[in-house]
Amino acid sequence: MNLHEFLSPPQESAKRSGPHDRIVMSSRVRLARNLKGLPFPGWAKKPDRIRTCNAIRTAVETLPQMQGAYSDSMENFSALDRQILVERHLISREHAARNAGSGLVLSHDESLCVMINEEDHLRMQSLLPGFQLTEAWCAIDAVDSALEQRLEYAFSPQLGYLTACPTNLGTGIRVSAMLHLPALVMADQVNPIIQAVNKLGLAVRGLYGEGTEALGNVFQVSNQMTLGESEKAILERLSKVVHQIIEHEENARRALLDKKPRMIYNHVGRAYGILANAHSISSKETMNLLSLFRLGVDLGLFPGSHRALVGELFLVTQPAHLQLRFTEKLPPEERDINRADMMRQALQTVNRPVIPSPDTGPLDKPPAP
Amino acid sequence: MNLHEFLSPPQESAKRSGPHDRIVMSSRVRLARNLKGLPFPGWAKKPDRIRTCNAIRTAVETLPQMQGAYSDSMENFSALDRQILVERHLISREHAARNAGSGLVLSHDESLCVMINEEDHLRMQSLLPGFQLTEAWCAIDAVDSALEQRLEYAFSPQLGYLTACPTNLGTGIRVSAMLHLPALVMADQVNPIIQAVNKLGLAVRGLYGEGTEALGNVFQVSNQMTLGESEKAILERLSKVVHQIIEHEENARRALLDKKPRMIYNHVGRAYGILANAHSISSKETMNLLSLFRLGVDLGLFPGSHRALVGELFLVTQPAHLQLRFTEKLPPEERDINRADMMRQALQTVNRPVIPSPDTGPLDKPPAP
Repeated sequence: MNLHEFLSPPQESAKRSGPHDRIVMSSRVRLARNLKGLPFPGWAKKPDRIRTCNAIRTAVETLPQMQGAYSDSMENFSALDRQILVERHLISREHAARNAGSGLVLSHDESLCVMINEEDHLRMQSLLPGFQLTEAWCAIDAVDSALEQRLEYAFSPQLGYLTACPTNLGTGIRVSAMLHLPALVMADQVNPIIQAVNKLGLAVRGLYGEGTEALGNVFQVSNQMTLGESEKAILERLSKVVHQIIEHEENARRALLDKKPRMIYNHVGRAYGILANAHSISSKETMNLLSLFRLGVDLGLFPGSHRALVGELFLVTQPAHLQLRFTEKLPPEERDINRADMMRQALQTVNRPVIPSPDTGPLDKPPAP
Repeated sequence: MNLHEFLSPPQESAKRSGPHDRIVMSSRVRLARNLKGLPFPGWAKKPDRIRTCNAIRTAVETLPQMQGAYSDSMENFSALDRQILVERHLISREHAARNAGSGLVLSHDESLCVMINEEDHLRMQSLLPGFQLTEAWCAIDAVDSALEQRLEYAFSPQLGYLTACPTNLGTGIRVSAMLHLPALVMADQVNPIIQAVNKLGLAVRGLYGEGTEALGNVFQVSNQMTLGESEKAILERLSKVVHQIIEHEENARRALLDKKPRMIYNHVGRAYGILANAHSISSKETMNLLSLFRLGVDLGLFPGSHRALVGELFLVTQPAHLQLRFTEKLPPEERDINRADMMRQALQTVNRPVIPSPDTGPLDKPPAP
């Protein structure tokens, strides 16, 4: 079975839902672990990395959670496979560059993923749709406990779990939520919120993690510190902040609809108009416009049934997913053309947003929610 | 009768057609004349200007061509009236700023217009749709000859007609054509053409004449010299150049359709998508997008029946025409909203451009012309 047969089709993947998924696109908890007495991957020689990788893969594959998992050494993934995994947020961009001596085990439902010999011997994550940080924590904690029976972790009673980079030392935990914040961006309120969140010791990043842009108005909020605080405390703090950001975004949406409905209609309408009529469109522009389309669905300007379509388009218009539909490697300009063709086709049955017209309703009243 | 009742409704005005009007939007010939022994308007005292203006108005009104004309002193035109006349290309922006002592006589069919005490005592023009420079010349020449029976022009056997500014001295003629050149702009070929035209002693200007931008890809080409050449020679030279520019634009359209059809579809499709879905749009953006819509009609991407609609929208979305529909004076932001409302309404029955889809035809072939 190849990776593409294993991964759920985008239209299925886009149907996954969870609490608060109007704003929280996904919740993720990942743990960094290393094996006792072995050099970290960055220091290890290739034969050692291969030996370690094999030992870890065997341990992970035999977990009950990993029944029917996809497991392989990184050198067996094509460049396209790797990019697909990045676009699905299953592996890091760093891991996508690894080869022999690094590996991947991905659970049948794609919610659990273990990267072997990324920066640490083990980087295991649980990824769930919507706001499910606690559920994600419980799932990955169970994997971690089970693995601890099979592998001897590098652990210091004083420092906690030892990691290649000191920023992960202690709990080795990174809790993050992917948030869709178009109204805060439109109302120019996102920067103060990022600053406030930073002051609480949390990081705000772009769509693909560290050092990436907030494409499509998507922001990742995560803890920065892993030392001196329990997993539970970190989880609770992040959950609290995410709840507050949800509230800010909801307030911003209400305020815009109340005070500047035309601004929202204008952004959403233009986004729809371009997506439905362009003949060439970049991945970046697509994400930014789909973000506004998604906001339009949230605000009732499009039928709720289009929510899954937006999610699917968000996935399939990314470069690697798009490339999947073609046998030959496409240059970026060709991808832009094919992306636009796919988009026009997909939106052929999507009608213009329904907005109270000045002839039938007052100019400045929002549509019924 | 007020001016608005006199002027043809925009939908009628937009139906006027002429030869080569896919590219040549209109043809214009204007003559500058002054009365013997009287100071130019810029030097005359107000009572003198009023006396001269009245004498000229009487002479112009009694011409057979001016049966049923609209004639008034400039102080009787509201600010909105003046702007409407500018947007219809009937008076200059300079004349729109004139008051008592200046006047206007506009023929019943709006093709002949005499500005009194603009920069010269008389600025008379003939404005015709499409490529009709010779027809416009004959029409205004007849007016000029008839007026010469009634008024004594300032004329020097050696210099010709005397004018306030030496750039109009001699024949006092300005021949111009308004050209729609979207393909040359898109193919980045318009600047070399402007330079070549300039070298021939012709000027290229924007939509509203001297010192204005080429909004909506519309360029005005006109003669610069009025001295030392006969009217016929000027007319022939400009006609020849306009014919060449038409050919260049047609070639650019063919070449783009042949080599970069996607680029045209992309521009036209996006323009349509935005016009049909925006909820706020400036006059400038509207013109630039309508220009692409017009190109789409020319290229058969929209039914030919939409040509008049584009012309009408081009007219009615300009600030003063838009303001006409409202009793209170609208601030620009309100105008942008109302412009977008009007546009969405107008395009509700206009379907997406018809372009061969990648499923039904080859990617890079243009649609049947």
